[in-house]
Order: sequence, then C-alpha cells, then structure tokens
Amino acid sequence: MNEEVNLAANAAAAAFRQYATSPGSKRAQFLREIADGIEQLGDTLIECVNRETALPAVRVANERARTCMQLRLFAGIAEQGAWTGERNDLADAGRNPPKPNVRSCLRPLGPAVIFAASNFPLAFSVAGGDTAAALAVGCPVIVKAHPAHPETSALIGKVIGEAAAKCGLPNGVFSLLTDGTHETGLAIVQHPLIKVGAFTGSQRGGLALWRAAQQRDEPIPFFAEMGSINPLFIFPETLARNAELIATGLHASMTLGVGQFCTQPGVIFLVEDDASRALLDRLAALVSATPAGDMLSASICESYASAIEERGKMQGVRILASGESASHNSGNAGRRAGAVLFVTDASTFISHSGLAQEVFGPSSLLVLCRSTADYVRCAESLQGQLTATIWAEDGMCDNSDLLWALEQKAGRIVFNGFPTGVEVGSAMMHGGPFPATTDSRFTSVGTRSIYRFVRPVAWQRPAA
Amino acid sequence: MNEEVNLAANAAAAAFRQYATSPGSKRAQFLREIADGIEQLGDTLIECVNRETALPAVRVANERARTCMQLRLFAGIAEQGAWTGERNDLADAGRNPPKPNVRSCLRPLGPAVIFAASNFPLAFSVAGGDTAAALAVGCPVIVKAHPAHPETSALIGKVIGEAAAKCGLPNGVFSLLTDGTHETGLAIVQHPLIKVGAFTGSQRGGLALWRAAQQRDEPIPFFAEMGSINPLFIFPETLARNAELIATGLHASMTLGVGQFCTQPGVIFLVEDDASRALLDRLAALVSATPAGDMLSASICESYASAIEERGKMQGVRILASGESASHNSGNAGRRAGAVLFVTDASTFISHSGLAQEVFGPSSLLVLCRSTADYVRCAESLQGQLTATIWAEDGMCDNSDLLWALEQKAGRIVFNGFPTGVEVGSAMMHGGPFPATTDSRFTSVGTRSIYRFVRPVAWQRPAA
Repeated sequence: MNEEVNLAANAAAAAFRQYATSPGSKRAQFLREIADGIEQLGDTLIECVNRETALPAVRVANERARTCMQLRLFAGIAEQGAWTGERNDLADAGRNPPKPNVRSCLRPLGPAVIFAASNFPLAFSVAGGDTAAALAVGCPVIVKAHPAHPETSALIGKVIGEAAAKCGLPNGVFSLLTDGTHETGLAIVQHPLIKVGAFTGSQRGGLALWRAAQQRDEPIPFFAEMGSINPLFIFPETLARNAELIATGLHASMTLGVGQFCTQPGVIFLVEDDASRALLDRLAALVSATPAGDMLSASICESYASAIEERGKMQGVRILASGESASHNSGNAGRRAGAVLFVTDASTFISHSGLAQEVFGPSSLLVLCRSTADYVRCAESLQGQLTATIWAEDGMCDNSDLLWALEQKAGRIVFNGFPTGVEVGSAMMHGGPFPATTDSRFTSVGTRSIYRFVRPVAWQRPAA
Repeated sequence: MNEEVNLAANAAAAAFRQYATSPGSKRAQFLREIADGIEQLGDTLIECVNRETALPAVRVANERARTCMQLRLFAGIAEQGAWTGERNDLADAGRNPPKPNVRSCLRPLGPAVIFAASNFPLAFSVAGGDTAAALAVGCPVIVKAHPAHPETSALIGKVIGEAAAKCGLPNGVFSLLTDGTHETGLAIVQHPLIKVGAFTGSQRGGLALWRAAQQRDEPIPFFAEMGSINPLFIFPETLARNAELIATGLHASMTLGVGQFCTQPGVIFLVEDDASRALLDRLAALVSATPAGDMLSASICESYASAIEERGKMQGVRILASGESASHNSGNAGRRAGAVLFVTDASTFISHSGLAQEVFGPSSLLVLCRSTADYVRCAESLQGQLTATIWAEDGMCDNSDLLWALEQKAGRIVFNGFPTGVEVGSAMMHGGPFPATTDSRFTSVGTRSIYRFVRPVAWQRPAA
C-alpha cells in the first residue's frame, strides 16, 4: 500500500470524531484562519500561481478573493448550524402502540478525499470550495494536489496546517497528497477509511475514480464534476436587438482564461438570417484579433491542439476564424494556444456526436439552424450539461418546449447572459445530469454543495 | 427489447412533462384518490393479501392503514410545496461585475422504477412509500410487481390507474410490470428513458440492479435498501431493571411477521452475568413456545432453513432454543418456519463474518461478552446497518465510544426500544451505510425519502 496515502487516511480517521463533534464555531474559526492565512501570503502567492499556471496576476487576485470569500461563507454555515436540518417528530404516549420520539440531523460522512482541479489553482484546489464545504460540516479532508501547480498547493497546504494547529485541531483534519500520479489518486479513493470523494476535472479522470469508488468492498459516494459544452440558444429578434452585447460578451466568455472553464460556451445555436450573418462577421473579427494565450499545462494544450485539428477535418464543419496562432510566440510554445471558431449546421451537429463533446480551450462551434424549431431538436440531442443559456425576450420561453428540454439536460439555465462566472451563493447549482457530473442531485459550488458530504442519522427514544 | 418494459418506459416519458408541471394540488388529489380506492377495496384486498402472503388479516389491515396514511402524508407534501426548497439569491446591479439573480428549486428526476418488496405487500409494494414519494414530487412511476403477491399487485395497480383517470392524468403516470422475471427487472433499469430507481429486498437483487444502473450509458441514481442485522447492545444494570420488558419485547420483535422485517433484531449483545443468564432462560422458554409460522414464499422459507442449518454447524455457536418446527403442520409445509435462537461469544462473533450476515426469518443470535468494553469492539466489526439499539440508563451513553461507533454504522439509533416498527414521519431515517443501502445519504421511509427522486435546477437572470 502507498505509504503517503495510508498515513493520511489513518490520520484523517483518527481526527474524525474530535473534528466532527467540535462546535460549529470551532470549524468556523478554522476556515477563517485559513482565509486569513491565504491573504497573508500576499504577493508570494500571486507570483507563485502566475509562474505555475500562466494565469495573469489580476485573474489570480480575483480567484484568491473568491477562495477566501468561499471559506468565510462556509465558516458562516458551520457557525449557524442550520445545515444539520434537524427534524423532530414528538412522542405520543397515548397512541396505541405508543409513538416514540424520532429526531434526525445531518452528520458528516467521514474522511473526504478532494481532487484539486488544474483550472482554478485556488478556488477549486487545496483550499477551494470542496475543501471548505467538507471541513464546514466536520469531514477531515485529504487533498490530492494537482501536478500542474505543486508549489501553490504546498503554500496553501502549509497555511491549512498552521490554521489547524492554531485552532488546536488534530493534524489529521487535513492532509495534502503531493504525489501527482494516477496510482496515488486511485489508492486514496480505494482506501477503506475514506468515506466520500469529490473531483473536478476531465471525464476520463472523473469516471475512473468514480468507478473505483463504486468497486470498493464498501462503495462510497464520489461526486465528479466533469465539465460540459454549455450550449447557448439565441433567438433571432433578441440577437437583432443586442447584437454588439452578444458578440462581445460571447467572445469574452469563449476566450476567458484561454477558454479553460467548465462553463465555457462550447456551442451556440443561431437561426440563419441577417442578424446571425452579422454576428458571424463580428465574431470572426473578434476571434481573428485574439492573441494566443498560455494554457495551464503542456498536456492540456496538446489535447486542445489535437481536438481542434480533428474538428477541422470533419465534413460539414468549417473554420470561421482563428486567432493569433501558437507559433507566433516561441517563449512558451509548448502551452500556447490560439482561439478557433467553427461553424456548422443543425443536421451536421445532430448526426456527429463528436461535435457535442467538450473541447477544453478557447474554441466554440456556431450551429446555424433553419428556424428555432431546430433548437428543440438540437437541445434534445444533447447529453447532460452544467449550464444551458437562452437569449430571448422576457417571458417568451416560459413553458416552452425548449426551456423544458434544457431543464432536463442542465443544472443551471442562464437567461440573457453567459455561462462563465459561477456565483457562489445559497441558490447556485453547479452540477447537472451525466456526463456533466456523476450525480445530478448535487452541486459542487454554493452552500448546497455540503450535501455531498453528509448523511442523516436518527435517534429514537420511547414515549415517556 | 422487452415490449412490456418499452411500452411502460415510453408512456412514462410521454407523461413526465404534464405530470411534473401539474400543480401540487393535482398530485395530492391523485395520491388521495389512490388511498381512497385502496380503502374501498375492503375485505377483498385483505383476503387477497392474506391468501397470497400468509400474513394474518389483522397485520394486513394495519399495513393497509399505514399505506393509506403514507399516501395522504405525501399528498400533504405535494400540496404544501415546501419540498422544492426554493432558494433565491437576489441580483445586485451595483456590484462590479453586476450580480445576477439566481433562483433554484428541486425538480423531479423523471420516470422512476420502483421494485416492490415481498415482506410488505402493501406498504412497500405497488402503492407503497416509494411510489408515494416519487409521485408526490412529479415522477411518473413504473412498479415492478413482486411475484410473491401478483393478485394483490394487480388490485392495487387497477386502483392507481382508475385514480389517474379520475384526475385527468395521462396513463403513463403509472404502469405496473407484472412479469416477475429478473430479466424484466434488469431491462427496466437499463431502459434509457428511466431516470431513477428504488428497491427494497435482498442484497443480491439490490446490488445487481444498482450495478446495472451504474453501467448504463447514462448512469442513474438507484437506491437499494437491502436490510441488516440490527444489533442490540444491552447494558447489564438496564437489563436487570427491565428483565421482563426486554425478554418479551425482544421475543416479539424477533418473531414479528415470522421475522420477515428488514429491522428484525438479528444479533443481541449481552454481558455474561446473572441478569443475562436469566434473560437466556426466559428467551429460551418464549422461543420454545413459539408456533411455527408461514413465510412469505417457499423460496424465502428455503433460504431461511439453509441459513439456520449452516449457522447450527458453526464452531462456537449453539442453538439455545427452537420453536415449533416446520414439520408440525403439513398444510403449508413448503413455507412453514420455526423460530431459532442461537448463542455465541464475542470472539467467535468477531472472527466469523458469517455471523454478521442477515438471516431473513425468525432467528436471532445472542452474543455473550465479558464486559461492555467488548461492545465497542463488536460494534466496530459490523458492516453498515439500518438500525442499532442501545438499552442503557438515560444519559449513560452520551458521547460514549459505543454511541459514536454505532452512529458511524447505522442510520437510526434506537434507545430502550426495539428496531421493528418504523415510524413514518418527517424525521425518520430508514437507511444507512453500505450494505444496508447503496447510499447512506438517503432514506426510503418518511418524508425525507423524496430526496431520492429530485435534483436542483437553477435559473439565472441578469441584474435589471
């Protein structure tokens, strides 16, 4: 057995009871100490993330703010305690037979393993939303660090360890696995002391870990968020009225962070008319003027390049525009990627399932339809999604076939906006039907995300 | 493809949108019509159940009352609508960037398949708790009838069909699969239009269906409740003070319904002392005087007989007492079973995992321990359970190692009572860690059980 994995699992199990039964105020203090510690890293952290991930400093600073906000949001959840959802059915001694008192609460599942994502080196990594949610409800956490940002992971891991010590919590409440191999990832999911897991990343990685979680002697819940193509459906009259807003917003959402978001808009459905022809021209201009960007790692960039090449060869699909190409800058050539905009028609889209697969990077596919009737057909052909977006006049889509179809396919419906930019709040649903995630009943962003890590326990006592 | 399965799945999918978007009051009306219809069957139903299952008329009448109560309880849930758990994060146009409005609600997953249990031909069968929960939240239901009570299933199925017609609901809102083969069960779980499943029954059956649900192209949630051995831990001083109450209560709980409950107390931990020796004597007398009973089916009886035979041959295990034996009555010989009480010691229990396996029928195992310190060791050796029971003085077990260990193993902790008799209320947790169920985060009894059938959907709108 992998010794690093075994030590971490045993330490987490040893810490579980003390941590799970600690008052919510203690867990809140812990989460706030982590947030404070991250802020105190100052520019050291920003520079480290920038160096490892190529994400610009402004983006990193924003992500750090979000990460600390998340930690403090979950601190509030831990402190308030309402998350336990206590229910209490009173006893009735007069009933025949006497009715007992049954009280139930949500309780932490046990030691949790969190797989850090590459595309959010802070907000979905060592002290990201998954860690905050699991710690808030009393699960010790073991993070499998992402190999794309090892120094960042170590910096944050050290902050968490110091926060635990400051709060008088046992060491095992948090561990960081720094060995980046797939074997280590599998070993921790398979360890009998681990009781729940969460993952954000690729479909291949997520499914492999999810299967391993199910094939254990004691299967455990494992939530994998595996991304999606986040379709947009734009109605002609709305496009005509918001042409520039849609063109610039769509281009920004498509290329934000070099397209490396699980909510990146991968496919856009349009009705072929004057307004959409104008949009294509405008988007082509914007994409053509887009500088190449550094992706998170060379392997991600390689996958992007081969997906683009494959798509470019498909019958019925053509490249509408390309941005600055990778070769224009040789400094970081191995991870440099350019934006690519493809265009096809509804029939081609429906008949080629490959066009409904995620291309992770700054590329989108425009699908020209004969009429909005094609939208429903296309929507029904989709697999599960994190988001689906509709641009339409207010009320126009209420009770429509399209809205119904999309509600069956996606966890979040965006009206007149763009899917990137996931608000962290009480109502957010960042999840969706398979293969966007492994279980559409849970979210990995927002306060609802704690439900991945808890189970109800009831206590029954006789009527007096 | 199985034609019956295909027709039912297509009808359910066709009915889904209308049913899911119907007002809660409509679904409530439907559930109440079903309850009324079941009551109107009168003695016809009682006689039919009694004939098919050998359950006595009084028990059947009680179960009918519970079934109708459940339907009306879930009608109230549907009508009140609070189950959708709406959350609304308000927009903030002044934030940079502007914060959108995000609202989320729980929504039905889609067509559900429910596998009826043999041991509750009404309460966990065609119009049982699973069906009521799924229908309450807007999932069309396909019930796979249990072959042990086909006429009962047909009677209830007809009532549901008539209730649907009376409420103006489409046919596909409910279908009954009457072909009792395993192939039909697998086929319906594998059907792409089915979105969720629930099962109560054996571990073998539950696991086979759960695996099939995961191995689909689109895996679906499948909740299997597979029973457990429901351990009791009795503290010496409490036993001494409640000797007769515990002896008669335990005997009744052990033999209730010929032991055919998933909460039947299968193993009882005692400290070897004068009080426990007296309990053994009293239990031996009660068991010896227990008449043989008819089990639900010949195959269940056969499994029971072979489990008893195997257990009787185990080293370190002895038969303390046996009730009237099967052969005493030849009228229903193939399904007639006698109570058997076994006794062993803690070391034997821990070293033979077979002793921690469920024996479905009127048999329990007494485990004599040297001290209550053995209780924790034994508790930690257990697999997941639906229930665990502690007989102790008030407050004595608070924060104890035993209570903590049992809370990790079981969904419901019973104090100073017996595990049979599951209250149907808002706080009930009838579930537990694997292998009691396939997902400890859900219950199959009580109003929390609706969460098996729903998922959150969020709607995002821009700040004005």
